[in-house]
Amino acid sequence: MEKTENARWIWYPGDFEIRQGLLQNFSREERSYDWPAYWNMDDCHKNVKFKRYYTLEKATSFVVHAIGIGYVEVNGEKFPFGKKILCEPGKNKIRVFVGNTAGLPAAYIEGEIIKSDGGWSASNFVEELPAGSSTLYTDKEQDPNNIYFNTERVQAATVSSINGGVLIDYGRAVFGTLDIKKLALDKPITICYGESDAEALDIDMCYYKEENADANSTPRKRAFRYLFIPETTPEQVEIEAIHEFIPLKNQASFDSDNELMNRIWNISVETFTLCSGMFFLDGIKRDRWIWSGDAYQSYFINQYLFFDENINTRTMLALRGQNEIKQHMNTIVDYSILWVIAVENHYMMTGNKEFLKQIYSKMKSMMDYLLAQTNELGFIYGREKDWIFIDWSEMDKEGTLAAEQILLLKAYNAMIVCGSVVGEDTEKYSEKYEQLERNLMTYFWDEEKGAFIDSYESGKRHVTRHANIFAVLFDFVDKLKAEKILQNVLLNDKITQITTPYFKFFEQDALCKLGQTDRVFNIICDYWGGMVQQDAVTFWEEYIPDEKGNAVYEMYGDPFGKSLCHAWGASPIYLLGRYFAGIRPTSPGYQTFSVEPKLECFSAIDCTFPIKGGSIRIKKEANTLVVCSTKEGGTMSLNGTDVVLKANMEYAFDLPKELVGNSY
Amino acid sequence: MEKTENARWIWYPGDFEIRQGLLQNFSREERSYDWPAYWNMDDCHKNVKFKRYYTLEKATSFVVHAIGIGYVEVNGEKFPFGKKILCEPGKNKIRVFVGNTAGLPAAYIEGEIIKSDGGWSASNFVEELPAGSSTLYTDKEQDPNNIYFNTERVQAATVSSINGGVLIDYGRAVFGTLDIKKLALDKPITICYGESDAEALDIDMCYYKEENADANSTPRKRAFRYLFIPETTPEQVEIEAIHEFIPLKNQASFDSDNELMNRIWNISVETFTLCSGMFFLDGIKRDRWIWSGDAYQSYFINQYLFFDENINTRTMLALRGQNEIKQHMNTIVDYSILWVIAVENHYMMTGNKEFLKQIYSKMKSMMDYLLAQTNELGFIYGREKDWIFIDWSEMDKEGTLAAEQILLLKAYNAMIVCGSVVGEDTEKYSEKYEQLERNLMTYFWDEEKGAFIDSYESGKRHVTRHANIFAVLFDFVDKLKAEKILQNVLLNDKITQITTPYFKFFEQDALCKLGQTDRVFNIICDYWGGMVQQDAVTFWEEYIPDEKGNAVYEMYGDPFGKSLCHAWGASPIYLLGRYFAGIRPTSPGYQTFSVEPKLECFSAIDCTFPIKGGSIRIKKEANTLVVCSTKEGGTMSLNGTDVVLKANMEYAFDLPKELVGNSY
Repeated sequence: MEKTENARWIWYPGDFEIRQGLLQNFSREERSYDWPAYWNMDDCHKNVKFKRYYTLEKATSFVVHAIGIGYVEVNGEKFPFGKKILCEPGKNKIRVFVGNTAGLPAAYIEGEIIKSDGGWSASNFVEELPAGSSTLYTDKEQDPNNIYFNTERVQAATVSSINGGVLIDYGRAVFGTLDIKKLALDKPITICYGESDAEALDIDMCYYKEENADANSTPRKRAFRYLFIPETTPEQVEIEAIHEFIPLKNQASFDSDNELMNRIWNISVETFTLCSGMFFLDGIKRDRWIWSGDAYQSYFINQYLFFDENINTRTMLALRGQNEIKQHMNTIVDYSILWVIAVENHYMMTGNKEFLKQIYSKMKSMMDYLLAQTNELGFIYGREKDWIFIDWSEMDKEGTLAAEQILLLKAYNAMIVCGSVVGEDTEKYSEKYEQLERNLMTYFWDEEKGAFIDSYESGKRHVTRHANIFAVLFDFVDKLKAEKILQNVLLNDKITQITTPYFKFFEQDALCKLGQTDRVFNIICDYWGGMVQQDAVTFWEEYIPDEKGNAVYEMYGDPFGKSLCHAWGASPIYLLGRYFAGIRPTSPGYQTFSVEPKLECFSAIDCTFPIKGGSIRIKKEANTLVVCSTKEGGTMSLNGTDVVLKANMEYAFDLPKELVGNSY
Repeated sequence: MEKTENARWIWYPGDFEIRQGLLQNFSREERSYDWPAYWNMDDCHKNVKFKRYYTLEKATSFVVHAIGIGYVEVNGEKFPFGKKILCEPGKNKIRVFVGNTAGLPAAYIEGEIIKSDGGWSASNFVEELPAGSSTLYTDKEQDPNNIYFNTERVQAATVSSINGGVLIDYGRAVFGTLDIKKLALDKPITICYGESDAEALDIDMCYYKEENADANSTPRKRAFRYLFIPETTPEQVEIEAIHEFIPLKNQASFDSDNELMNRIWNISVETFTLCSGMFFLDGIKRDRWIWSGDAYQSYFINQYLFFDENINTRTMLALRGQNEIKQHMNTIVDYSILWVIAVENHYMMTGNKEFLKQIYSKMKSMMDYLLAQTNELGFIYGREKDWIFIDWSEMDKEGTLAAEQILLLKAYNAMIVCGSVVGEDTEKYSEKYEQLERNLMTYFWDEEKGAFIDSYESGKRHVTRHANIFAVLFDFVDKLKAEKILQNVLLNDKITQITTPYFKFFEQDALCKLGQTDRVFNIICDYWGGMVQQDAVTFWEEYIPDEKGNAVYEMYGDPFGKSLCHAWGASPIYLLGRYFAGIRPTSPGYQTFSVEPKLECFSAIDCTFPIKGGSIRIKKEANTLVVCSTKEGGTMSLNGTDVVLKANMEYAFDLPKELVGNSY
């Protein structure tokens, strides 16, 4: 990197994300107690050193600011932090030692020539690597142990008297704090929060409650749309909400003749924006934990909305933790595997080799950890305390599971792709891949059923959707088998339906991939449209059409256990971008990419999606489709014809009748 | 453990020591900067859970206090901390989840029946073990992240005007803070500290300085005997020193006809007491780091002074860190090995099987780490970045080193002893032991020289004292070879002398073991007596008789680099107890022990030394020696005769003329 870059805070690579991830996973609050995540969590290193050599043509000075204690060493001589240090011409070895028992040790080096831009190494006294940094921390007055949120004041949309108190509706989901502007009472108040009015009004069972609040109270950050203040009147109390966020640029737009779909798009954007901050969260109200499975889906949504590379890498580094692996990610074996697969997807999305170089050794150690629990057939099995999750669904879990093997197969593939890029020997993974692929087809593919069975050891030959969906998504079946899976499993009502929105994501993905966009269009209109009809301002963790009244808020045995703003609820963004607009990279970082719209469900549409270093706009009106990419490398496929797209040229296509639009 | 025990703070075992060890190793201060230790350091877990089952006969209530955030779970139902929780009769599963991003997570459970006494398990979500605790933290108002020192106010012994300022001499070494009682000046003062007057008076080069101090200043904890306040007069300033310490009971006493030896004893006690707190420190002024080599010697001194088991285990747990080993202890290979050997010694001293059970898995992983760097002959070698220390001495370090192999051999022995006690299979270590012993004698024992050579690979056959000393200490040579080592090495002036007090400890130990107590008596009188003559109030890191004036304070190229209160300086305590009083355990925890006094150097002496669960008093007057042990199990050996000692019986022995006393 260039010396002309600006200085920024530097740290041992990965440590910022691990430390902030720890803080994030400790931020869950439920009713009157805190609920730190229930797994083993790494913390950042507490003792690090930074190093850089400078060959100076003239004398120069610099000052080191640090979060922590320590000293600066110039050619062996020690100096304190915060004081100007003069460096003579010639070769200079500069080291900065920082220890911080309270959190992340970090340094900011300020000077004309000697400064903490790119080029510093960081060591934990065992391993020396390029120092880590973030574009969010470029100011010496900052402390990377804190998060500096942007804020937005939100006024009440409606204030009403009810149940002897005041109900405030902000008309939108807020993730933030409160400013009590007025309190004309001679006693403190209780503030009950709710994502729904029902939750806020339930003073016993609402998730969050601020008790003994007065005008000076600054409640902690919480997620809510409603507040209820018992035993007050609208004249006595005025509360502004302060929404907190890390700005992310929405790089996509969507407008169609289908008003419902437009609303679904907008609510998806609102939902995903709320759940995306320093990391991808599952949702804003409940866990606020970083789950690898949830994050996996968020990477895909991000690719078609923010195209923010940093939130991906922050989330992946936080999830992975330090080198030594003590437990599967979130305790779940499949979540560990999804993490490996996600790295390859990130590389395809961004083409970022530097990140691959940083993360590859942690991918390898993760694979070693996984390989240690494979049997002589190459099948991965669960050990005591391992959670073989896949999904909350009835599945024949005797012995090794098909779905888990298909994930592992894809992970080998990811290692081969990523390892080749960083110049590592991937022969081992190729061998493992071949063995596993062979045995997967031998033991788990049931030719008679035309589908993968859950388990071969039980002899039950039970079929669920999960393994079959993964096999389609990861291209492990040929056209013939894929068609069998579509008919025998995905479109077969006798096969237990997917009930969780988590796996619905994968199912829609697979259906689209198998050409079922029309069907998926209907599912989006029904399922997400159902939430829109229920006046949702964000998409929920789960929607069950039959549920009525306050029962819709119940989940996990808790009357308000359901999260009403959940990242995976935003999956229409991905489905619309990936399959309806039909945009996908065909080489890393969209050096080449494919645009293959399937817009028959829309009579008119005007949408833009980001790609690496550019964007693609697709416009359809009547029988004309116009496509424009700001970046070279695209190939447009329409109706069996391929057209190479030059940058910033509008290509107009006449649509044959069958593609003009169904006007759903 | 019994339910009737008192409650105490509990944590994940080892975490308290690891966390406090981190804080300790970050406490070094040098001139105007902090100097955290230069190695990879572990921190405690941040997320733990405690568990216990109670079968209650009647309802009972309890309250959980915690350092950190989290909740209490009773039979699956969650409760906040700090509130009374009622438990119904019958079987109850109680879990306490504590997360603390700022330090050690800990819990204190208060109740009649349900309380944090023994019997709780602690889990890091991977491994479940008996919870850790300390007798220092039994009060719910405490926080195990803090150390609660006892304090002692120290008045100036002399106050004098010098160099235009005031020099205060407290007449003793203080390790603590200051209370500025009077400051009749209209500007802030500078306070220069010194272990010596020369250091305090050197306002540029003194180690510690408090600048801009006023009457409200509370300087941080430092080690000093002198203060110098420039530009003041004795009328203008009055400062009390506040000495801080963790009380340790001196269980030994020593009084003889030799006044110098009495003073050496007393100064040794003062020195060792100052360097012993939460952990064994190398010294109080400079590093304040926990060094495994220094601690190793402190364990031996402790055995004959405080007999404090807890400071041993705290130091060993802090040194060892978490399960995963990333680096040798203090980066030094031999320090890792000494740690393993020390555990066996601690077991012989205390007979504490519980501690062995707790630590054994960490001994095993340490051995795995060491074994990974042995070659086909079983010899351990240094890897890149490993520090093969042994001593600051010229040594032929080509290839593998004899001294290192002898330490490793002793470590195998420790594993066999400790593994057998905890019921582990130690066959592997027996095999390794045999191979290494065989090859050690083949490759490193030089029959012609009658000594171990440093290195066989170089072909130089160079002999230094170190390997030979270790071989004697660990009983790896028969009488014949031991005698050869004595004559050819230890008493051979052509073999480079030991120059460091660190290795002098081992050398005196070996000399005594080979019957050279008379010689060692003289060495003590000369070397330690030399420091007494220089008005030492504590024993130094190093004493070089030829050095004069301020040159005595120089070390490591720093004019005041020498530590004047250094733990290993207290080694006369060990030598007097172990060899002159002749007390040592012959089975774990002094179930049996031997008393074999060698007191010919004293005409009269009255001394007491602790043993596990008792003490032994030895009195010599004229031609009578009286011995009394408060504990059964001792065997007195005198002049070739063994007498079994009954508890609390005085045994008087008439001394033959040659044992009456040399009156040195």
